[in-house]
Amino acid sequence: MATYNAPINDMMFLFEKLRNNKHYNELEKYKEVGPDLAKDILEQAAKMTENLILPLAKIGDENPAKFENGAVRTPPGYKETYKKFIEDGWTSLSCDPEYGGQGMPKTISAFFDEMLSSASLSFKLYSELSIGAYNCILRHGVDSIKKKFLPNMVKGIWSGTMCLTEPVCGTDLGLLKTKAIEQSDGTFKLSGQKIFITSGDHDLTENIIHLVLARALDAPAGTKGISLFLVPKIQIEDDGSLGQRNGVSTGSIESKMGIKGSATCVLNFDGAVGYMIGPKNKGLSSMFTMMNLERIVVGIQGLGISEIAYQNALNYSKERKQGKSNNTQSTNGADAIIDHADIRRSLLNMKSMIEGERALSFWLAQQTEVSLYHSDSKIKQQAADLVSLMTPVVKSLFTDMGMEITSDAMQIFGGYGYTKDQGIEQLYRDNRITPIYEGTNSVQAIDLVFRKLINKNGNIIGYYTQLIKRGIVESTKSEETKLFAETLNKHLEVLIDFTAWIEKSMTNSKDDVGAACNDYLRVLGLVSVGYSWLKVLDISFKEMKNNKKFFMDKIETARFFFDRILPRIDTHYKSGISGSKNIMKFNFN
Amino acid sequence: MATYNAPINDMMFLFEKLRNNKHYNELEKYKEVGPDLAKDILEQAAKMTENLILPLAKIGDENPAKFENGAVRTPPGYKETYKKFIEDGWTSLSCDPEYGGQGMPKTISAFFDEMLSSASLSFKLYSELSIGAYNCILRHGVDSIKKKFLPNMVKGIWSGTMCLTEPVCGTDLGLLKTKAIEQSDGTFKLSGQKIFITSGDHDLTENIIHLVLARALDAPAGTKGISLFLVPKIQIEDDGSLGQRNGVSTGSIESKMGIKGSATCVLNFDGAVGYMIGPKNKGLSSMFTMMNLERIVVGIQGLGISEIAYQNALNYSKERKQGKSNNTQSTNGADAIIDHADIRRSLLNMKSMIEGERALSFWLAQQTEVSLYHSDSKIKQQAADLVSLMTPVVKSLFTDMGMEITSDAMQIFGGYGYTKDQGIEQLYRDNRITPIYEGTNSVQAIDLVFRKLINKNGNIIGYYTQLIKRGIVESTKSEETKLFAETLNKHLEVLIDFTAWIEKSMTNSKDDVGAACNDYLRVLGLVSVGYSWLKVLDISFKEMKNNKKFFMDKIETARFFFDRILPRIDTHYKSGISGSKNIMKFNFN
Repeated sequence: MATYNAPINDMMFLFEKLRNNKHYNELEKYKEVGPDLAKDILEQAAKMTENLILPLAKIGDENPAKFENGAVRTPPGYKETYKKFIEDGWTSLSCDPEYGGQGMPKTISAFFDEMLSSASLSFKLYSELSIGAYNCILRHGVDSIKKKFLPNMVKGIWSGTMCLTEPVCGTDLGLLKTKAIEQSDGTFKLSGQKIFITSGDHDLTENIIHLVLARALDAPAGTKGISLFLVPKIQIEDDGSLGQRNGVSTGSIESKMGIKGSATCVLNFDGAVGYMIGPKNKGLSSMFTMMNLERIVVGIQGLGISEIAYQNALNYSKERKQGKSNNTQSTNGADAIIDHADIRRSLLNMKSMIEGERALSFWLAQQTEVSLYHSDSKIKQQAADLVSLMTPVVKSLFTDMGMEITSDAMQIFGGYGYTKDQGIEQLYRDNRITPIYEGTNSVQAIDLVFRKLINKNGNIIGYYTQLIKRGIVESTKSEETKLFAETLNKHLEVLIDFTAWIEKSMTNSKDDVGAACNDYLRVLGLVSVGYSWLKVLDISFKEMKNNKKFFMDKIETARFFFDRILPRIDTHYKSGISGSKNIMKFNFN
Repeated sequence: MATYNAPINDMMFLFEKLRNNKHYNELEKYKEVGPDLAKDILEQAAKMTENLILPLAKIGDENPAKFENGAVRTPPGYKETYKKFIEDGWTSLSCDPEYGGQGMPKTISAFFDEMLSSASLSFKLYSELSIGAYNCILRHGVDSIKKKFLPNMVKGIWSGTMCLTEPVCGTDLGLLKTKAIEQSDGTFKLSGQKIFITSGDHDLTENIIHLVLARALDAPAGTKGISLFLVPKIQIEDDGSLGQRNGVSTGSIESKMGIKGSATCVLNFDGAVGYMIGPKNKGLSSMFTMMNLERIVVGIQGLGISEIAYQNALNYSKERKQGKSNNTQSTNGADAIIDHADIRRSLLNMKSMIEGERALSFWLAQQTEVSLYHSDSKIKQQAADLVSLMTPVVKSLFTDMGMEITSDAMQIFGGYGYTKDQGIEQLYRDNRITPIYEGTNSVQAIDLVFRKLINKNGNIIGYYTQLIKRGIVESTKSEETKLFAETLNKHLEVLIDFTAWIEKSMTNSKDDVGAACNDYLRVLGLVSVGYSWLKVLDISFKEMKNNKKFFMDKIETARFFFDRILPRIDTHYKSGISGSKNIMKFNFN
């Protein structure tokens, strides 16, 4: 089984040293949330994930969620652990105190998301969508709905889902067919089939609150005729108690490559009672509140799985002896494989991506809080635009790198990586869903180039690249960070050129843009991680005297990133701008 | 379930148009093997693999090989199909007529290897190692052993294994512990444990012939004290009939991520009777006859799995409708996803790698035959050196690209790619062993830079790059291929620079070389595939009038490779030459 130690040191480093977003620090509601509280929460979270949740990973893989007699049964131990999980208040961590939440910021809850993802993605998914549904209802529901549903969701005794996909539509929700017929009392009756519904049914909570996209009877075709509905699995009486079973049933669950402990359901709605959330025909935009936050969390899943894969590969490489290293000191026997240059390169490749991603994700957590709660609407909007720009980037980059990292970890284990004992191959299989769900990574890239670079608020990417440029100019002033800053600047210039090419191509040939979007996303992502590393470097050189080992480690890890990972940008740029003429006219037979 | 159509057209194109190696065509033994015979064999092979073997893939995944009462049971249907398989003579295809083989060249049998890999890697593995063992015995066994064992192996009623790995050693065979004690009759008694033995036990054949690396009693330590032994599962009487069970038993089989139909065994040798093959203490070099041929076949496995993944992604992208393409003609509903630029890019990425790899592999098949059978020893050695150089490259590049291609195919299927129904995720899991077994891809890269570039026969890589250079000069003479040739030349220059850097670093810092070896392998591999494409382009422009559709398809596929894949070389070069100083001194904690 894979082992795990929550990387609290690195998390606390970010919390103490990189929580320097001026606007974030202006937020009244988080004034009291300092390092002591953060550390206390992270230590409790570490205990929970390392001791109770980690063992569920293997159990869930060996005893997948089952569908029997119309209901889903979770793997052994899930129920008991979930009970403890909600008793200790973990579902309420980031929720509004008005509904019983602890009101913690994403600067803390994102770390918790990472830990949970490391320990068991399958187990995490049962509460993850609840938080998504909670956020959606919180922002778009009317008061009576919020009062009726949110407290129990915050407590975790009810869970939530998001029901978008149907057999004919995943990416293209305009095609969806589920119907909602308005009743005289203002409620709706929903009928249709939803597929790939994560935690669509299970035995962990008393009730499940489905958020369902459907089409009202008189709605226009396409995406402009979609509304959002809240459909409880079990109806709620006026006094808040559980009533009759609603008209939603589970048709089957999927047999999947990984995350086998998580139930992925076909749900059949058959005249199920639902409540409209948000304005009629604007359901997609309400749902996107949930989707966007969720996409960032999926990125964090990739980060969390990368972290545990790295930890296990590192441990194994210290134990496994094989071959003599180039500078061997031993006179007989083999050296630990961590003494071999190629293994060290592979480990640093993982580490430099993981820590860079964590820093980027921490910056994004601060921006997200500013986008939600800052009192100045302009500042709020600016942060929202940055979050919107970086959401597809974080989702795709972190999950793709999660595949690279879990794969490289398997390679370090050799044959033992392909067998089930060590738990590495499970990380690889579990993570493989992350580049697919919540919109495939190509769909993220399309979203980025066609919708996010420029919107009604103007040139977001221009604003972002200027932000990075200013950071580079600052870092160039110090001798210690100068070379790093100059290297990043070269790559930033490529990003700027690539962006100009995208903008130009947008008028000439949208297909050129479509064929380049994945490369573009990767360039933007790598520059962003590089920018995060530059911030870490600034601090590391300044703080060196306080903890030489820690900060030297950071500097050398960053150096690896700048030397060996940033050059990937060159290839993406060259490939990306090669155009689409022969791609589009190619005659596939 | 995945579908499959053997790509006979492309194979026959290579056989008819690229079988132009002068030395290969000088081989007496293959003078009679022309296109008609090749086509006949490939068509029969296609029927077999498409109809009988393909269904075994899913069956094997759902009903893994079982270990019961000390014996391995293969999945349902394997036995019946294997019987038909050997009755039709498929195990004997490439074997020597002296022992009952059909004596077909690798220019044909490599295509058969590809087809089998596409249809079911698990099923293929039961006969694949037999051919490996056959080759090893053929080259290193004495006549009496060959007469005793080879005819039944060629017939397929006996199978073979290669037993190298032990719990403490995979890459580093110098550590191996299995002992062989010489008996008064010249036989040996072997004792020890071997792990990860593919087809180590099963119920498909009457007998299993193990080739086992072990250490004779008085042997020196390390790799210089390893000998090779033939150990039959069931002993053979002097009259050739089956005798007593030998002292080898199956301890267990592995539970694996994929290739579940294939039994991966722990074998316990307990005073098992064995016959020494080849000279004492030179067992590793005898085994490498088998290993090297086998490594190329593993590369071809990656190619075969890539092909079937591509075919299924292509079919699905024509059926699945989602979203409007940029140039949509439709007024309502969605377009097939193959109309989207990004999907087309992804499909061409697969296709251009697959067809380039197939052409490279076909060239290598010719070189291999020359290296084995040419009458001029200098020509023979030259070909052997090229094969030796390209073996780790083909093994690693094709299997890594197999992961990229099966992964991209999954992405095209979206959520359906992660569930079991379509068979795509199985291709991804099955292929995942190929970068690991027969030496991990990093071990291949280490082999390449430290052992293959330069050997006692001189500067092999220099000879190879000159060969490519001459091809480029030729192609530059024609207006049609000039631009392609110039592009390849730029990348060849990078390869030459990288090679010079490797040679220089070999004296300064072996760790620099170790940290760069994977990047170097990739650069050499991509240039080699580019060179293969250049040969295909030469022919395509010349032959255009004979089949415009086919050759235009080739030219445009090549264009994609030159525009979008060759630029990967830049990143590998830049990353590779960045040195290892901070990697080696990094303090992993």
